[in-house]
Amino acid sequence: MAITVVGSVAYDSIETPAGRRERCLGGAATYFSLAASFFTEVRVIAVVGEDFGAEQEAVFNARSIDTRGIERAAGKSFFWEGSYLENLNEARTHTTDLNVFAAFEPKIPEAYRDSEFLFLANIDPVLQRRVREQMPGVKLVAGDTMNYWIKDHRAALLEVLKGLDVLLINETETKMLAGNNNLVQAARAVLALGPKALVVKHGEYGATLFHESSPKGKSAERPFRAPALPLEEVVDPTGAGDSFAGGFFGYLASCAAASELTPAAFRRAMFYGSVMGSFACERFGTERLQQLTREEIDDRFILFRELTHLD
Amino acid sequence: MAITVVGSVAYDSIETPAGRRERCLGGAATYFSLAASFFTEVRVIAVVGEDFGAEQEAVFNARSIDTRGIERAAGKSFFWEGSYLENLNEARTHTTDLNVFAAFEPKIPEAYRDSEFLFLANIDPVLQRRVREQMPGVKLVAGDTMNYWIKDHRAALLEVLKGLDVLLINETETKMLAGNNNLVQAARAVLALGPKALVVKHGEYGATLFHESSPKGKSAERPFRAPALPLEEVVDPTGAGDSFAGGFFGYLASCAAASELTPAAFRRAMFYGSVMGSFACERFGTERLQQLTREEIDDRFILFRELTHLD
Repeated sequence: MAITVVGSVAYDSIETPAGRRERCLGGAATYFSLAASFFTEVRVIAVVGEDFGAEQEAVFNARSIDTRGIERAAGKSFFWEGSYLENLNEARTHTTDLNVFAAFEPKIPEAYRDSEFLFLANIDPVLQRRVREQMPGVKLVAGDTMNYWIKDHRAALLEVLKGLDVLLINETETKMLAGNNNLVQAARAVLALGPKALVVKHGEYGATLFHESSPKGKSAERPFRAPALPLEEVVDPTGAGDSFAGGFFGYLASCAAASELTPAAFRRAMFYGSVMGSFACERFGTERLQQLTREEIDDRFILFRELTHLD
Repeated sequence: MAITVVGSVAYDSIETPAGRRERCLGGAATYFSLAASFFTEVRVIAVVGEDFGAEQEAVFNARSIDTRGIERAAGKSFFWEGSYLENLNEARTHTTDLNVFAAFEPKIPEAYRDSEFLFLANIDPVLQRRVREQMPGVKLVAGDTMNYWIKDHRAALLEVLKGLDVLLINETETKMLAGNNNLVQAARAVLALGPKALVVKHGEYGATLFHESSPKGKSAERPFRAPALPLEEVVDPTGAGDSFAGGFFGYLASCAAASELTPAAFRRAMFYGSVMGSFACERFGTERLQQLTREEIDDRFILFRELTHLD
């Protein structure tokens, strides 16, 4: 089933202990699309500036990602500059230039309207909601957000949360959104805001899936934890969370029918998310995702199983 | 197979967001023994003061732990006071009074000498080594240490590490011991110091088992990660790491023959370690371990499997 994703397509300048890259292709929708493209058909909605050229377009084309929803506007693309010199787990942001993103009005191409899966990457919740409302027929909606929207745009964000099947955020964001420092209590509070499931990303410690409480039985309430691979070298963690989301949601969309979206499918999706996140960290920007093969993905899935399974 | 453990039996005054307890029974050897006692026969070597009475003795007796190696000395028992008000993952130490521990000379009762497993809990590495040398016939030796010994008693510690089969320390200690901030590289450096296996404890994120590189095949080199249970309420994390060690080593000792110490047994031991660590956090001090049943342990083992296993 096809996924439509709305989010940023951007340029990033990144510094990590492994080195520095200037203006490499980035943005949440870019990482998400590349990761999800190994599992299913992906369609992007974003806006870019005049600095987005054939070279960048080719990155999407090489993975057969539909870019008809990427609007070209006068001006420059979204630009982010950050470093991870002191802490590989958290970026220090030096510059955020919204540029063409400041006036972004997402438009959904007619060809995207039969998408059954929708991913609302981390953008202004007002825009997330607008896109969601324009695609009433989707089967499964997942989304991301960040501390800025949680703190200063809470009302708009709460509207979005009401319509989400799955919210994917990191642990700090989960606790901030709930106003509670205990992960289990915070997860319950977030689920009470609307999402049917919550994926909490723990960076190098993997991710935990929480389901809304179900009267049907205890098993539906139990969390599930996917590991992250202990990596010999983390070159660049930029986009790892978006790549996780792409692997997670891409795998779910690859389940041919809604009846196949079982708890077991969600658990496998968590593992595929972790797999894609781990690959993203191995090179700068999207370099590793661009060169990846499905065989490598499945080999790493097996490695993750061996890393955590008793037998 | 019986385990002999040497370490502290102490009194702890603890403050956490859940409340405060004065002078409750604590110490690494206490937590370790209680946890391990659910799996195998346990014998303790320690020193206590005149303040250690029948009530404390009864805690060990109730779990059939051999206390003939607990020496009574003139003076007070080891005392520790700490709090977790700002951070449940790391204790802030307010007081450490070594008391009778300052002049501790471990003596091994004749009845302990046929122990096949030896655990060197976190004490002066000079004492750890002395105990190790007095028990040349043991099959498997594991040990713990802490930042203080790593920083200021490195030479003595390195001597201990040479004779260890398994070292169990936390992530910060691993990186400090190796002088390397990457977990995988740090683990390799620690294994090069002598231990055949390294268990790195990540607190609420579980623990990772690293094996020394083996020329026999790739699988021996791969790490294994056990989860921790996301807990609704962490009442008191004191002793969680020692309880992990007790569950881990106790389970290994319960494997009747050395030939049963397979990689699969080590993986199950990691899960039992995590299980015992999670119970320890649920009440103050040793309260939860004292009231535990083997059935509860096995139920939680199943829960941990469900938490992480795909099928």
